[in-house]
Amino acid sequence: MSREGLILKLTCPDQPGIVAKVAGYIAEHQGNLVELNQFSDSLNAKFFARFEIETPGMTVSVDEFISGFGAMGDAFMATWHFRRLPYKMRTAVMVTKTDHCLNEILWRTGLGELPVEITSIIGNRDNCREVAEKAGLSFHLIDMDGDNKESGFGEIRKILEEQQVELIVLARFMQILPDDFCADYSGRIINIHHSFLPAFIGASPYKQAHERGVKLIGATCHYVTSELDAGPIIEQEVERVQHFHAPSDLVRLGRNCERNAIAKGIRYHVHDRTIIDGKRAIVFSD
Amino acid sequence: MSREGLILKLTCPDQPGIVAKVAGYIAEHQGNLVELNQFSDSLNAKFFARFEIETPGMTVSVDEFISGFGAMGDAFMATWHFRRLPYKMRTAVMVTKTDHCLNEILWRTGLGELPVEITSIIGNRDNCREVAEKAGLSFHLIDMDGDNKESGFGEIRKILEEQQVELIVLARFMQILPDDFCADYSGRIINIHHSFLPAFIGASPYKQAHERGVKLIGATCHYVTSELDAGPIIEQEVERVQHFHAPSDLVRLGRNCERNAIAKGIRYHVHDRTIIDGKRAIVFSD
Amino acid sequence: MSREGLILKLTCPDQPGIVAKVAGYIAEHQGNLVELNQFSDSLNAKFFARFEIETPGMTVSVDEFISGFGAMGDAFMATWHFRRLPYKMRTAVMVTKTDHCLNEILWRTGLGELPVEITSIIGNRDNCREVAEKAGLSFHLIDMDGDNKESGFGEIRKILEEQQVELIVLARFMQILPDDFCADYSGRIINIHHSFLPAFIGASPYKQAHERGVKLIGATCHYVTSELDAGPIIEQEVERVQHFHAPSDLVRLGRNCERNAIAKGIRYHVHDRTIIDGKRAIVFSD
Amino acid sequence: MSREGLILKLTCPDQPGIVAKVAGYIAEHQGNLVELNQFSDSLNAKFFARFEIETPGMTVSVDEFISGFGAMGDAFMATWHFRRLPYKMRTAVMVTKTDHCLNEILWRTGLGELPVEITSIIGNRDNCREVAEKAGLSFHLIDMDGDNKESGFGEIRKILEEQQVELIVLARFMQILPDDFCADYSGRIINIHHSFLPAFIGASPYKQAHERGVKLIGATCHYVTSELDAGPIIEQEVERVQHFHAPSDLVRLGRNCERNAIAKGIRYHVHDRTIIDGKRAIVFSD
Repeated sequence: MSREGLILKLTCPDQPGIVAKVAGYIAEHQGNLVELNQFSDSLNAKFFARFEIETPGMTVSVDEFISGFGAMGDAFMATWHFRRLPYKMRTAVMVTKTDHCLNEILWRTGLGELPVEITSIIGNRDNCREVAEKAGLSFHLIDMDGDNKESGFGEIRKILEEQQVELIVLARFMQILPDDFCADYSGRIINIHHSFLPAFIGASPYKQAHERGVKLIGATCHYVTSELDAGPIIEQEVERVQHFHAPSDLVRLGRNCERNAIAKGIRYHVHDRTIIDGKRAIVFSD
Repeated sequence: MSREGLILKLTCPDQPGIVAKVAGYIAEHQGNLVELNQFSDSLNAKFFARFEIETPGMTVSVDEFISGFGAMGDAFMATWHFRRLPYKMRTAVMVTKTDHCLNEILWRTGLGELPVEITSIIGNRDNCREVAEKAGLSFHLIDMDGDNKESGFGEIRKILEEQQVELIVLARFMQILPDDFCADYSGRIINIHHSFLPAFIGASPYKQAHERGVKLIGATCHYVTSELDAGPIIEQEVERVQHFHAPSDLVRLGRNCERNAIAKGIRYHVHDRTIIDGKRAIVFSD
Repeated sequence: MSREGLILKLTCPDQPGIVAKVAGYIAEHQGNLVELNQFSDSLNAKFFARFEIETPGMTVSVDEFISGFGAMGDAFMATWHFRRLPYKMRTAVMVTKTDHCLNEILWRTGLGELPVEITSIIGNRDNCREVAEKAGLSFHLIDMDGDNKESGFGEIRKILEEQQVELIVLARFMQILPDDFCADYSGRIINIHHSFLPAFIGASPYKQAHERGVKLIGATCHYVTSELDAGPIIEQEVERVQHFHAPSDLVRLGRNCERNAIAKGIRYHVHDRTIIDGKRAIVFSD
Repeated sequence: MSREGLILKLTCPDQPGIVAKVAGYIAEHQGNLVELNQFSDSLNAKFFARFEIETPGMTVSVDEFISGFGAMGDAFMATWHFRRLPYKMRTAVMVTKTDHCLNEILWRTGLGELPVEITSIIGNRDNCREVAEKAGLSFHLIDMDGDNKESGFGEIRKILEEQQVELIVLARFMQILPDDFCADYSGRIINIHHSFLPAFIGASPYKQAHERGVKLIGATCHYVTSELDAGPIIEQEVERVQHFHAPSDLVRLGRNCERNAIAKGIRYHVHDRTIIDGKRAIVFSD
């Protein structure tokens, strides 16, 4: 949506009348509901929804609209979130050696596919510096090997805070994040894992895939939690492979899966199309 | 939905407040909205929606609910349709020689994937009689070759009327339907075409595909209109092929596309997940 | 190949000149090499090949041709296998409750897609009896629960021996085979597992997939070894799913993956397009 | 293959003994056949093959090996082609406005996926100049609108000749090539068309696709002939779309198809994995 607007995401216990009340609230203030996605999870008696609203014609200010919603949200026992549009999410990208996911993010951002403002590229190796700097972005090389891990992540936190980063994208970042870091940025870290999770968790998934002789390889974009490669999945891509593909071929073919999965994952997140629900993610894809 | 319920499909000029009003009407009568799909077509200023409603707790009868909606629908300048659930759609399947699509329909109906009541199998060849009769269904062999076309389709109409058929599925039926037949059953005839339309319209699409050397073949499930293979598309499936696949291999590999596409197409139609909009079909897939 | 012919499968240490010598041997006896697939596995210095040969014009008998090859095979330090065409492989299908894979096998066999001779259907539940008997096949109900497992598998062995079964297909057979049974029929048992292996090994993979929130589900056709769900993979199929798909929807959507994967797996095996290489399978797919 | 070697492509009337003789010739000179792909087209009685040979251990020079093959090739009534490895094909990329295909080619070339030497970027608009020059490549802006078409293509020919270009890639180049240009560079021009050919030939295929309401969009990489969008197809990619995708969404989603299809198409061509056979292309994909 290029016009001014709002996105409302909502999660609450399932109950009759939610859509009527929320849509009624929007209509009452002359908001224009342009897209509505909802999911009634009958297994768990939970309700999830995303409302995309054009606001220029509203009879109240956006601030009043948002604050006025509180009583209804509370009555639903809901958690909810409003986002004002247009919006560019402040995003830091963390990398190690390979740059194909970083390149893809830069390229799609340039095309307008990803409404993000990239604040900085943070690497624990220097390999991606050139790509970052060619794109006019600052590159922070942070040593976080061995004993420097704690101080390194301290530095990273400082950068993220100074730059008011809202989203951290691990674009083939090959270090395990500290638990407290995962906890503090819960729901705001997106990773790309180069396998079709939950197959091949951990290191060298393409080598594992080759040894196991799978006929499809994949990549998984997911939210990061303290449990390795186990956070809510946003998007997965697969590609057919054959016996003659060596591990190096899987690396080559897998890059495509990784690039697509991370780009879609970021897009869904920054468009507020994802709602985390325990170990799963609701994704109202577009 | 296995409980008692209603599906409401609605098309109207786009305007603010539709969802609020319809959902409000449902809530007001204590209906429970379990699924809502909507599409605001900003290019054409049209609105499309499907509401799935549990009715057991309603404060009015279903009849009253439906008739009470009329004033609102008229105010929207809408066309709309209600379906009571549970429902089995009375369906005739028309065939010629090959039986793989027929088999798939019978098999999925048996599994409960397709809520249809198959009234009869109608063939212009006798090949599928055995499959039909093994399944306990009556098989009508109707001669509609050459000069017998008009009388043949007259007989078919009689069968369809006597059996109160609501949906006609052309499951690899290899005759072109008369224009008036297409018109009279508009929106109620589903065909499977064995190509990825609009490529390879007409006869022998696999042979055409082989000659053209395409790298993917496909099948298209679509509503039938008087223009050959040009009706609104409901579902398409593709399969990768290579140079060594002879036309007979394309036939073999294409069967899978055909079976899946027709089964999904029927499912979407009988679940009221499709809305025809000129030459296109809105499909709220599940 | 519908004409008379031979398939030669060959595995040996990689070395120059193998293709020249084998193709030379075929040409020398006026065999016609109609298809050749080879794979030089440079990582492991191994060579694998499949030769499909028309034999009607040969200057020697097929028996002489086969026995004459021995010296060359030995010189390569190869293992090899000849199959005379046309051939129908004697195949037993083992089932439990669900019949969709069995149905698919029967259906594709009828169409000529799978050159098998189904000797019998063996079930540890009675559910598939009707499908078997409608198809004119004998159905053996064998109790192999709890204490009856050993005697049950004894009975099965007797049936397999009497009927000279060459291939055992586990078409959603829900019992773990005894280790000695796996060993004795090594390379001759094909299973369909209803997940994208190695994800979701063991019971209830669709339930596991739902809990994990994956965005693609799959099915895996593989050779059976004594290690559960870990044998060489022949074929894998996937299907995209979303958050609103309940476990019962995954079961429904997964059936398609299962049907396709098992049908392709059987086809590749009976056409001698697979070569087992440790934990992996070379598959010269068609 | 990173070692020194040869690729032999061969087309001839089908006849017994071809593989034996060619493989025999290679073995006789101690060449090492590392990959062999063949296709016996029984419908047209034609034989196609690709031999990949390591040459360091050969008993003759590569020149002698190649010239010595002539008698055999003639005896087969074959057309054939040898390529010495390692090889980088001299490639010109022609563009108009959009740069996503160009970017992809540059990116994959940098990664070593495409063994090409990009000689220059030629545009009929100036939009891609920056991308070209950032990559250190010369950019030629050539006016070929209206009356300048003939002189423009004259200039292009001069550039191609001076730079000894072997492959011309049309990376979303939006002009129709003159017939004589197509003829003179026959088999050496690769185009990406942004539809699933033969559907939506010509201009604005995404708009056409939207109007037709297709459920999958695609892209086609093909050799260019004087008949518009009708040359032999090398690769095709598809992506699923829904009713809510506006033409601008199809453009966005289609970019992925285009990027993958053109990258694969170039890779197959420069690895000599394609053989043109009339209106079709044999593709021994890897």
